[in-house]
Amino acid sequence: MLLCDIGNTSYHFLDGENTFKESVSTFNPTSITKKVYFISVNAAVSKKLSFLENWIDLAAFVDKKKYYETMGIDRIVAAMAVKNAVIVDAGSALTVDMVKNGVFCGGFIYPGVRAMQKTYENISPALAYSFNFECDLDIMPKNSQDAISYGYLKTLYLELISHNLPIILTGGDASKFKKIFKDAKIDEQLIFNSMKKIIKENEESLC
Amino acid sequence: MLLCDIGNTSYHFLDGENTFKESVSTFNPTSITKKVYFISVNAAVSKKLSFLENWIDLAAFVDKKKYYETMGIDRIVAAMAVKNAVIVDAGSALTVDMVKNGVFCGGFIYPGVRAMQKTYENISPALAYSFNFECDLDIMPKNSQDAISYGYLKTLYLELISHNLPIILTGGDASKFKKIFKDAKIDEQLIFNSMKKIIKENEESLC
Repeated sequence: MLLCDIGNTSYHFLDGENTFKESVSTFNPTSITKKVYFISVNAAVSKKLSFLENWIDLAAFVDKKKYYETMGIDRIVAAMAVKNAVIVDAGSALTVDMVKNGVFCGGFIYPGVRAMQKTYENISPALAYSFNFECDLDIMPKNSQDAISYGYLKTLYLELISHNLPIILTGGDASKFKKIFKDAKIDEQLIFNSMKKIIKENEESLC
Repeated sequence: MLLCDIGNTSYHFLDGENTFKESVSTFNPTSITKKVYFISVNAAVSKKLSFLENWIDLAAFVDKKKYYETMGIDRIVAAMAVKNAVIVDAGSALTVDMVKNGVFCGGFIYPGVRAMQKTYENISPALAYSFNFECDLDIMPKNSQDAISYGYLKTLYLELISHNLPIILTGGDASKFKKIFKDAKIDEQLIFNSMKKIIKENEESLC
């Protein structure tokens, strides 16, 4: 049995205890013959997979009424896994979702690291820097690299700490954000663990 | 006499009391024979203008030591014009600069409205919305348009109000941000007024 979380750019697999990624643009899903339980925010990929019998979309087993209509299934599945937390999923988008007493209270979407760096670079070649995740967010910057790093990170920081809830970091860039959110917990398997729980709760229909 | 503030995408002119814009990619500066006092953050345009006698770069009359080396001249000129304020210049980039008791205390750079919308759109076609500047920033969103609007605006809002200083909005998108920063003052001529002051203070060398 394989699990797969499909985003805008990658297929993210869990095989036993090993995770690996495949690019959305090059990976051929028919190359896998084992059973794959998946979730997908990528409409084009979802359509392709709907023709493959061994790819089982877990979205059908999720009570979406508690969330909102166009909310990505990855965010829903992550939110289902926690009781009281702000979940930060740092992928090509950075999604932030708040759960209080097991109830989803809303969330927002911020650009992921690479997307935001590209944005600054496109505005001006003078802003083509990597973000400095060790930038001092307590003082206003006086150099260009910190000026964009602070712009990306301090703004996000102030929003996240305003909720007074534990912060859980997941997604490919979780460890970068741990430098900013020092008290946050990294949980790289948050979505996969939630998917396993959905499978267990729906064993009868799924097996 | 013309004034011109040259950004990454436009020449922004002041002619008497009228302002107008020309695109960096199509405008030919030799088409103007009058004297033009300008500032420019666009290295390619600056180079072109250095060969034209009637285009006078005001950067030479600014004491840059009080700022930082790679800081855009538009931000410096704006900061020179205020005593106590956070200046938000909402153009293709959104720059934020803090001045206390006439001393520049640093600043940061955030993407402008169009650049940020493009970023979300590039992450996923499902995020191709315009920002909702009337989005309620007091509650976490439960729809996609507000999820990106809140991501762009609430984060910025919390940073700006944290300084407890008057907020001055300038640049092409100033009026949009006025909806978020209700107590802010819009000053569309901030940079041009500062340029006039520089010309006046350096009359002898400039005329």
